[in-house]
Amino acid sequence: MTTDTTAQLAQFAASLKFSDIPAPVLRRAEDLYLDWFASALAGKGARPVESITRFMRRMGPDSGPSQILIDRSSSSPLVAAVANAAASHFAEQDDVHNGSVFHPAAVVFPPALAVAQAIGASGADLLTASVVGYEVGIRVGEFLGRSHYRIFHTTGTAGTIAAAAAVGWLLKLDATQMRHAFGSAGTQAAGLWEFLRTAADSKQLHTAHAAGAGLTAAYLAADGFTGAQAIFDGKQGMAAGMSSDSDAAKLADGLGQRWALAETSFKYHASCRHTHPAADALQTLMREHRIAADQVAKVVTQVHQGAIDVLGPVVDPQTVHQAKFSMGTVLGLVAVKGFAGLTEFDADYKAAPVVAFRDKVSMVLDAEVDTAYPARWIGKVQVTTTDGRQLAARVDEPKGDPGNTLSRAELEDKAQRLAAYRGGATAAEMQTVIQQVWGLAQATTVPRFLA
Amino acid sequence: MTTDTTAQLAQFAASLKFSDIPAPVLRRAEDLYLDWFASALAGKGARPVESITRFMRRMGPDSGPSQILIDRSSSSPLVAAVANAAASHFAEQDDVHNGSVFHPAAVVFPPALAVAQAIGASGADLLTASVVGYEVGIRVGEFLGRSHYRIFHTTGTAGTIAAAAAVGWLLKLDATQMRHAFGSAGTQAAGLWEFLRTAADSKQLHTAHAAGAGLTAAYLAADGFTGAQAIFDGKQGMAAGMSSDSDAAKLADGLGQRWALAETSFKYHASCRHTHPAADALQTLMREHRIAADQVAKVVTQVHQGAIDVLGPVVDPQTVHQAKFSMGTVLGLVAVKGFAGLTEFDADYKAAPVVAFRDKVSMVLDAEVDTAYPARWIGKVQVTTTDGRQLAARVDEPKGDPGNTLSRAELEDKAQRLAAYRGGATAAEMQTVIQQVWGLAQATTVPRFLA
Repeated sequence: MTTDTTAQLAQFAASLKFSDIPAPVLRRAEDLYLDWFASALAGKGARPVESITRFMRRMGPDSGPSQILIDRSSSSPLVAAVANAAASHFAEQDDVHNGSVFHPAAVVFPPALAVAQAIGASGADLLTASVVGYEVGIRVGEFLGRSHYRIFHTTGTAGTIAAAAAVGWLLKLDATQMRHAFGSAGTQAAGLWEFLRTAADSKQLHTAHAAGAGLTAAYLAADGFTGAQAIFDGKQGMAAGMSSDSDAAKLADGLGQRWALAETSFKYHASCRHTHPAADALQTLMREHRIAADQVAKVVTQVHQGAIDVLGPVVDPQTVHQAKFSMGTVLGLVAVKGFAGLTEFDADYKAAPVVAFRDKVSMVLDAEVDTAYPARWIGKVQVTTTDGRQLAARVDEPKGDPGNTLSRAELEDKAQRLAAYRGGATAAEMQTVIQQVWGLAQATTVPRFLA
Repeated sequence: MTTDTTAQLAQFAASLKFSDIPAPVLRRAEDLYLDWFASALAGKGARPVESITRFMRRMGPDSGPSQILIDRSSSSPLVAAVANAAASHFAEQDDVHNGSVFHPAAVVFPPALAVAQAIGASGADLLTASVVGYEVGIRVGEFLGRSHYRIFHTTGTAGTIAAAAAVGWLLKLDATQMRHAFGSAGTQAAGLWEFLRTAADSKQLHTAHAAGAGLTAAYLAADGFTGAQAIFDGKQGMAAGMSSDSDAAKLADGLGQRWALAETSFKYHASCRHTHPAADALQTLMREHRIAADQVAKVVTQVHQGAIDVLGPVVDPQTVHQAKFSMGTVLGLVAVKGFAGLTEFDADYKAAPVVAFRDKVSMVLDAEVDTAYPARWIGKVQVTTTDGRQLAARVDEPKGDPGNTLSRAELEDKAQRLAAYRGGATAAEMQTVIQQVWGLAQATTVPRFLA
């Protein structure tokens, strides 16, 4: 076996067959697809998303085979891929792979869907190409390492390779062409965190750029265009320019055995990650004991020090964004509204019952939780009821992580909420989409969604 | 005056007026435009150029306001800018700014022309926008420094900002919007030298990508899209990620007084740079003394050590590429054909009179030339004629550099040769183009070239 891990990754990406993918991985790919689709709809109406979409429609053809989800228009694969990628990450409810700190859905599904629609691919093809995109992109993110992430937005950089891999599979690139596509993608890979300092719009541009540049790289490779052979670990390659702790072995880590796609987490609550374990524990407790919000007298969340540091200062949030860092508000929405989603934050973070619940919530440092962090995010809560009962609950893995993933019912519910959030689709339309997604593996051609 | 050099650069780029530009700089901008236009035509038929153009045409509209030069079709500004940028640098006869090691024309003129045609701008507008692109891009290249160039292709990275600046000026961005455009361009800036190791096609992709991403950044900024404020020197900006010797002062170096555009060199001979000083000296000698090739018995070129190291091994070149590293062949083409251009290399590098002349040429190390290098590239030759005369000539600055620039007659001649090289345009067509370019400053709208 070659020790050239770039060759191994290209070989894997070019030769993966639908039948190679274990059934649970395929089911998870469908789950991730639905979750992405709804996340993209939740980008509808957002200024940066609409801006990129408007630009691409202006520069592209008025019609074409590929759908733009937020406005249901159609154009060329490039235009649709860029527009949908811009929309995917705006609500920040799309998936995340913890190990690579990479959001695969936003950069894999948009180009894969756009090209699948353009070439008349089957649903199985779309799923296989998407698995290829996840497996390649996550490994490239792991390869680039933490030093890369300190300056570069991995979803933008590794995402370019992920997009090229997914599209390359659909275009039937052989291993040699796939390696050229990696080269052409990697030499366009970009995305700097500097925009965060002034909360600029670049995050949407990063996913859009990754999808467009990766798609371009794959089409060019199919046309004989060549790229660098050692784009990842060459002396003037990505790691040489943009990482100080890269590890080439990670490019081929467990290919064909380890399915990185199945390690990807769904986002459940629309709040700061530090609030999630306690929110999960409270939700569990209230369901198990059939407690309503007005039966709760006091909530003590047992947390790690990081949660106290980040969330402690937020006692009376004045904006939706602040509210997402308020432990009391998050738990109040979970208790009163049953869910701390985008809509609930927008509508109710200052609602009287939520504020009343918020003021019953406190945080205390818990030795077990603090010791386990950050390898494990344990959630523990103690509730005192109005009739004097003392109840407790714990959750060992946050909801949405692979060991505590969302059921299909929960995914459907989340998708409906995201679709409704900005009027991306009606409930009936989403019901059709949901059935289309669950039937994707059997679809002879990728359907037109939201027809 | 602010010490925020990014603000100063954005202010300059947004507010430069046609009337601010000294007449010699404007004339040089016209020179550079003609030189670029012909360089782009010389990319016609080249596989990587045709590949990128085919892809963009497939993804874009069938018609539009902006010309694609190599096939005279039209499309949207994005499609035309990307296609023309891909074509500009293929023949490697386009311009170069020595201090920043940056090829401005290839990334400035394609997006500037495409957008000028789309918005009905005047010739003066196109020239002013192009000057802005040169001034900004060269300074960003100087800012990024030598450490950047070791891994990154500055024409790809700084080129993205140059393209954004030129297009941003045409779209009438104010200084605040221009700074946002810089941010959106810089966060997409990319281009790695790794492709050189296997002579892959990435160079064409780098100029194409820079033009497209920069144009995108400017259009988005005009639509209110925001970018990083400190994209150059911020803690997670371009220099933090991609340079170890950046100097923020260079971003604003001499703005409005120093015209970096006028420092840009034209390429004259289509050969390795180390052959140019001797070729210039021989050409001077043969003209001054009215010597024909068959009157030359012996040529001794007095060179620096680097020339001997690089060119010495090439005694009997077997390919066009090798011939460009053969001092004897280059001087043979100059002596026999009068010019060592692309066409001459292709057709005559093995022609008997050229080979005969080649074998009369030798190199010797010269102390003065070697000491002056690399700050100055002095050319010295000694010729013995068949009738026994001893002649000598020297050139203190290579032809095409600012102190020994090309005359308009020489530029027209070079442009005609480049246009003819791959059949990009007829001589008559180019004569019209030449008149259009010399009249650009007076044109009320940018004409359709090669109509």
